[in-house]
Amino acid sequence: MPHPFPHHYEISLAWAGGENSEISSGSRPKLPGGPPAQFDGTDETRWSPEHLLLTALAQCMMLTYFALNKRAGIETKSYTSRAESSLDKTKEGIVFTSFKVTVELKVPAARIDEAKRLLESAKKHCIISNALKTPASIDARVEAGP
Amino acid sequence: MPHPFPHHYEISLAWAGGENSEISSGSRPKLPGGPPAQFDGTDETRWSPEHLLLTALAQCMMLTYFALNKRAGIETKSYTSRAESSLDKTKEGIVFTSFKVTVELKVPAARIDEAKRLLESAKKHCIISNALKTPASIDARVEAGP
Repeated sequence: MPHPFPHHYEISLAWAGGENSEISSGSRPKLPGGPPAQFDGTDETRWSPEHLLLTALAQCMMLTYFALNKRAGIETKSYTSRAESSLDKTKEGIVFTSFKVTVELKVPAARIDEAKRLLESAKKHCIISNALKTPASIDARVEAGP
Repeated sequence: MPHPFPHHYEISLAWAGGENSEISSGSRPKLPGGPPAQFDGTDETRWSPEHLLLTALAQCMMLTYFALNKRAGIETKSYTSRAESSLDKTKEGIVFTSFKVTVELKVPAARIDEAKRLLESAKKHCIISNALKTPASIDARVEAGP
């Protein structure tokens, strides 16, 4: 059961010189932040805001799938996903124009359709997806698998 | 100058057993993902979607400030920030009801007001903030500093 609502979340950021930062939150490993190559970042070992937003989205989709699956009990053999976004210049300025999450899932053959429905439901309940103005699409590739 | 638009961003997620995941993108250090304590996560060394969304927001605000400051040229002595969110049960389901970024900035005394205006402008142009349905507030604490 989730803790009683409302939940409160918090992180800290310290400037690390240039356009770099170090982000921390409790006992989590420190995150090296920096601009992506698309905005002239030169250090591709740093996580950008654009990439971090996608990590939140992909992970939220997976966690919501597993949360819903506590009731359904589909024996999930494997789960991998890819999250992508497009950022474009529009009349409203520079905005994210699309988010897409591709999920590759392996489940028992008899439960493929059910797993597809569960992923659609996960998309509907994912709190990160629901926080975004631009709706995320989901491409569910569910196969029978050992 | 940013690369020509549209930009494309991408990350990959691999399930790491239980509710854990490992997230990767090119040569960036792998990110350990997992649910937060608020949703019964037991490993506080893993980054949750809720925390990662805040890392994207805080970092975007800083990068936008420095991008705008390329023209203004305010000699920034220090920059730290904290990002917070509230997640609550509402009629629309479980949603983020607030985002707040507190920025502590040190600049030359003569440029304090200008720096405050630059931070407000950064909030207006931050692509992560602009991607969210719930507007982020900014608490700018700008002081004269060595």
